[in-house]
Amino acid sequence: MSDEALVIFTPSGKRGHFAIGTPVLTAARQLGVDLDSVCGGRGICSKCQITPGFGEFSKHGLTVTEDALSPFNEVEARYDRIRGLKEGRRLGCQARIMGDVVIDVPPESQVHRQVIRKSATARTIVMDPATHAHYVEVAEPDMHEPSGDFQRLAAALKDQWQIEGVEADPLLLHRLQPVLRKGEWKVTVILHKDHHGLPRILDIHPGFWEGRLYGLAVDLGSTTIAAHLCDLRNGNVLASSGLMNPQIRFGEDLMSRVSYAMMNPGGDREMTAAVRSALNELATSIAKEAAIDPGQIVETVFVCNPVMHHLLLGIDPVELGQAPFALATSESLSIPARLLDLSAIHPNARTYILPCIAGHVGADCAAVALSEEPNKSEDMVLIVDVGTNAEILLGNKDRVLACSSPTGPAFEGAQISSGQRAAPGAIERVEIDPETKEPRFRVIGSDLWSDDPGFAAATAQTGITGICGSGIIEVVAEMRMAGIVDPSGLIGSAEQTGTARSIPQGRTHAYVLHDGTATGGPLITVTQGDIRAIQLAKSALYAGARLLMDELGIDSVDRVVLAGAFGAHISPKHAIVLGMIPDCPLDKVTSAGNAAGTGARIALCNIASRAAIEDEVTRIHKVETAIEPRFQEHFVAANAIPHATAPFPELSKIVTLPDVSFNTAGGADGGRRRRRG
Amino acid sequence: MSDEALVIFTPSGKRGHFAIGTPVLTAARQLGVDLDSVCGGRGICSKCQITPGFGEFSKHGLTVTEDALSPFNEVEARYDRIRGLKEGRRLGCQARIMGDVVIDVPPESQVHRQVIRKSATARTIVMDPATHAHYVEVAEPDMHEPSGDFQRLAAALKDQWQIEGVEADPLLLHRLQPVLRKGEWKVTVILHKDHHGLPRILDIHPGFWEGRLYGLAVDLGSTTIAAHLCDLRNGNVLASSGLMNPQIRFGEDLMSRVSYAMMNPGGDREMTAAVRSALNELATSIAKEAAIDPGQIVETVFVCNPVMHHLLLGIDPVELGQAPFALATSESLSIPARLLDLSAIHPNARTYILPCIAGHVGADCAAVALSEEPNKSEDMVLIVDVGTNAEILLGNKDRVLACSSPTGPAFEGAQISSGQRAAPGAIERVEIDPETKEPRFRVIGSDLWSDDPGFAAATAQTGITGICGSGIIEVVAEMRMAGIVDPSGLIGSAEQTGTARSIPQGRTHAYVLHDGTATGGPLITVTQGDIRAIQLAKSALYAGARLLMDELGIDSVDRVVLAGAFGAHISPKHAIVLGMIPDCPLDKVTSAGNAAGTGARIALCNIASRAAIEDEVTRIHKVETAIEPRFQEHFVAANAIPHATAPFPELSKIVTLPDVSFNTAGGADGGRRRRRG
Repeated sequence: MSDEALVIFTPSGKRGHFAIGTPVLTAARQLGVDLDSVCGGRGICSKCQITPGFGEFSKHGLTVTEDALSPFNEVEARYDRIRGLKEGRRLGCQARIMGDVVIDVPPESQVHRQVIRKSATARTIVMDPATHAHYVEVAEPDMHEPSGDFQRLAAALKDQWQIEGVEADPLLLHRLQPVLRKGEWKVTVILHKDHHGLPRILDIHPGFWEGRLYGLAVDLGSTTIAAHLCDLRNGNVLASSGLMNPQIRFGEDLMSRVSYAMMNPGGDREMTAAVRSALNELATSIAKEAAIDPGQIVETVFVCNPVMHHLLLGIDPVELGQAPFALATSESLSIPARLLDLSAIHPNARTYILPCIAGHVGADCAAVALSEEPNKSEDMVLIVDVGTNAEILLGNKDRVLACSSPTGPAFEGAQISSGQRAAPGAIERVEIDPETKEPRFRVIGSDLWSDDPGFAAATAQTGITGICGSGIIEVVAEMRMAGIVDPSGLIGSAEQTGTARSIPQGRTHAYVLHDGTATGGPLITVTQGDIRAIQLAKSALYAGARLLMDELGIDSVDRVVLAGAFGAHISPKHAIVLGMIPDCPLDKVTSAGNAAGTGARIALCNIASRAAIEDEVTRIHKVETAIEPRFQEHFVAANAIPHATAPFPELSKIVTLPDVSFNTAGGADGGRRRRRG
Repeated sequence: MSDEALVIFTPSGKRGHFAIGTPVLTAARQLGVDLDSVCGGRGICSKCQITPGFGEFSKHGLTVTEDALSPFNEVEARYDRIRGLKEGRRLGCQARIMGDVVIDVPPESQVHRQVIRKSATARTIVMDPATHAHYVEVAEPDMHEPSGDFQRLAAALKDQWQIEGVEADPLLLHRLQPVLRKGEWKVTVILHKDHHGLPRILDIHPGFWEGRLYGLAVDLGSTTIAAHLCDLRNGNVLASSGLMNPQIRFGEDLMSRVSYAMMNPGGDREMTAAVRSALNELATSIAKEAAIDPGQIVETVFVCNPVMHHLLLGIDPVELGQAPFALATSESLSIPARLLDLSAIHPNARTYILPCIAGHVGADCAAVALSEEPNKSEDMVLIVDVGTNAEILLGNKDRVLACSSPTGPAFEGAQISSGQRAAPGAIERVEIDPETKEPRFRVIGSDLWSDDPGFAAATAQTGITGICGSGIIEVVAEMRMAGIVDPSGLIGSAEQTGTARSIPQGRTHAYVLHDGTATGGPLITVTQGDIRAIQLAKSALYAGARLLMDELGIDSVDRVVLAGAFGAHISPKHAIVLGMIPDCPLDKVTSAGNAAGTGARIALCNIASRAAIEDEVTRIHKVETAIEPRFQEHFVAANAIPHATAPFPELSKIVTLPDVSFNTAGGADGGRRRRRG
């Protein structure tokens, strides 16, 4: 046997020669092999388990003998006795290399394994959160060489983990001494690195601590607050939960909240207190749902639009309500969570807030960019995050543009006469027969269509209560395709449309989607006002996308990604018929789910992703819709609901009817305008 | 005229050649000449005033003509009109160099002028506090190139002041936008650099802000809290104030407070709350005294012993009560003042706490070392900071040792039957006639001796109320020199001493220093118990000094510095007779006043001094008296009050009487001990 041996790690294939007697963990670290360890090689944490391979490895031209590793030692035997070690497993910190060997690192010993799978495409996120647990053995105090307990702890972190310049604040220092003594100078510290790389101790536990660290990824929307509770060790989502943003009582949309702050002295502080209180409530409830102590939540990541961003930080959003829409601060923030009054979670927890892109394009859009990576796309991608404000990204690896468009809350079911939140009982899918003009629909909570047998029984419990956002889009598009609505958006009379479902309503008409009055349920109609609200919303969305396309000098995009919790439920076909998004092959329209929330999770799980998005937002070109005259032009031009004329077979099959046009004196705005003029 | 001109600055003598047209301020900066500027050369702050010299400068071989500087310009004229500019003065940022010139920088334009004069020796402290005001002009927001207001402010600080990587927390961000707009994008920022050099914005004011920044240097003692309110521009002390440490109700000395924390769950938190509340009270009252807004106090520096250090920080001091006396943290701290609940001062104020040296040798001792600089002393200096605990430093430029000694509060007048705080009416100086044994004394508030004509009238208002610390030391030493007390500390009877002022008191005797009972005043005596308390205190002090001398292998010191508010009032002669300090020529015993407080002021006024003392404490060798057997030996040996035998004429003149020894059955402890045995 020579002085050195060849070690090959699988599945990575990394290999190197090491001195006889080198622990496997040491070899793995030197080669950069992904092998976990919390205790730093002291045989305590058992995270560094490996499986040596013995026998013939013809691929490597290697024969591995049983004595290629040092014999099972006392530390391993003890661990096996107490906790049990799987057959064939060794502890990487105990097993020493005695000859050429092939070492397999099982998935559970790989700390950096893939964790974040998005609905559409699987994406590998390397697990490397800002907060880690480190086990250290601290020198005891010596009266003759006096030094602080903290200084000896810092020295241990430097020696044993190569972490230098660690800081602790008084809120941690007061726990340090009892914990060091309880652990008999062996402790586990919870260490956070901020965006400067400055290591800071968040907590300390006596001995080797087996507890888990959790993080909260929060998508703080104008209407809803959605959070994922993640295990910071493996990125698993333990629970996802949401609640209404209590700021709604100060104004439904962002601009009415800004107005509230402008009109009411201290109004911004009221809204800040409301949202912070809701965040504490959410943290408590999501921890309860996952059956963990909320005090174990050591990190939070926030993504939000600029107004929510300012209100969360306690900054008056008044400047965001008027040109030039200046943000107080646009860069990312890494701050103690207690500065945001997040008292429900760990008292030393940290908060990271993604950077904003511009006064109307917030950290939520940055999170979508982090999740969807348009800057790495080979083809031209349009990403639309549909909410009360739509964030729009357009570009590819050469250039990415961003804007935001004030769609209003119509797509979320608000401002719609029979609109409601997406909840059981809400109509979410609609089809209208172009011949009979009769509708069929599905409600949330049942897979049956309304003309399927058993539908009444299946929906008896929830009832049929209203129309949610995706249902609104479908019904309007279907009404258009069935000729009930003309290109200008007018609903025809019963006479004009040939269906008694068109009923007069004031000077306009409404379409009866469902009449439940016979059984005490609601009469669910689509009114002329509903159509107008959807037209305004979709025009704003389309105009924003168009503006970015103009800026890039393109007339079409290669693919469209619909993002947002709501975006996931939109039918691409109906969105295109309605003219929400530019024409695009249907199979090129995908949903990214809550991409902003996914971006928040990525930032929570991987510290390098924070630097990456901070860098990327400086390159994204921002277009301000509010002052761009072409936005108004596009907006006005997009008001109509023309037949889709795109050359896609799946659409041309749908859009076959001759068009209609209703131009009556009783018709909606047209009529009213005439009367006034 | 050539392209360059010679510029000579006085009084510094710095000189250099500069391109014609260079502003004087620019030249001064490039040469490192101490010329103030807050507005960065915009002609706003007027701090850079200079006086050009014209005519013959034979010393420099230079003739300066009137056109050596550019003519008085509009900015200067406007300033002169509004504020007035002294005859011959120019603004350094406006006046440009047109030819060879001699420029005088008047004292008020030198920012780094000497500010801290100590009572004994004048010392130059360069003014360079951690917190400065900077005037900046910020770019306005541009919708087409969106960026946060804070990011444009940071860019302005980088461009205009070369300050990079500035940080702000949410508590500042919420004020940023209104202030920038009110100041029309011209603002003055208050910038703090911590010990990592990280610049952080503490406050922001619209336009050029003429306000002052203040700092509080606090000596947080076990018994009293003393604070100096300093102007951070020039180091001037605007007010000095003190109050009793309210923790006294939890225990008079440090160890009883540690016991309180050990015996009472949450007791440490009670004491922390008490001292923090007192600090807020002190900040409020000192600001009122100086007629400033306490909100303008942007920095505090604390020096304190280790127990107070921990209690201030909210750390349970229990470990400091038992070997190995481990500190939670020994290094300096630079933290937000709000973490210490200092709500009375600026909400973003910063706190710096000097490093501790060891578990018994605190930041107060480090502050004394910073003020007295034993590490720069050529001769061997003993520095004694007398308080409830005495901190002792011994050494010279080669080596410095430190220890602390538990003297107890006797020197502060506590545990003394007629003892009291140093206040009007307290006896502070005492002489006893060695023949007649009759005393004369002086009280605080009058310069007359008690046998001077008019003394009764002069003290009528205050009365004669008790004996303060310095009076106690003098009276005991005088009693010893007059033969009223023997070397073991026993007070002789009237018979033994030959004076009716020796009166029986239980089994021992007391000496009547003043009998005011005839006029309704107190009977002020020195009891045997008082003598014992002083013996214990002085033995502890002496033993500590001796221990350090042993460690250095020396038998005498070159000079002694008495520090502490109380130390300033101690008569060196009496201290030596009493055996408080080792023998030393009287003219080599000096007082440094409140050296710890001075150290705190130095750290407040000069950021480099912080790094210097942080570095120095790592080199000071700590000796732990509590576990050193020789300390006990020295302590026992030092109990006696022998005649001073030092070979100094001024002492030998005093100590001329034959010695006495009282050994009676009625004598104090001796008698009691026999009875028990």
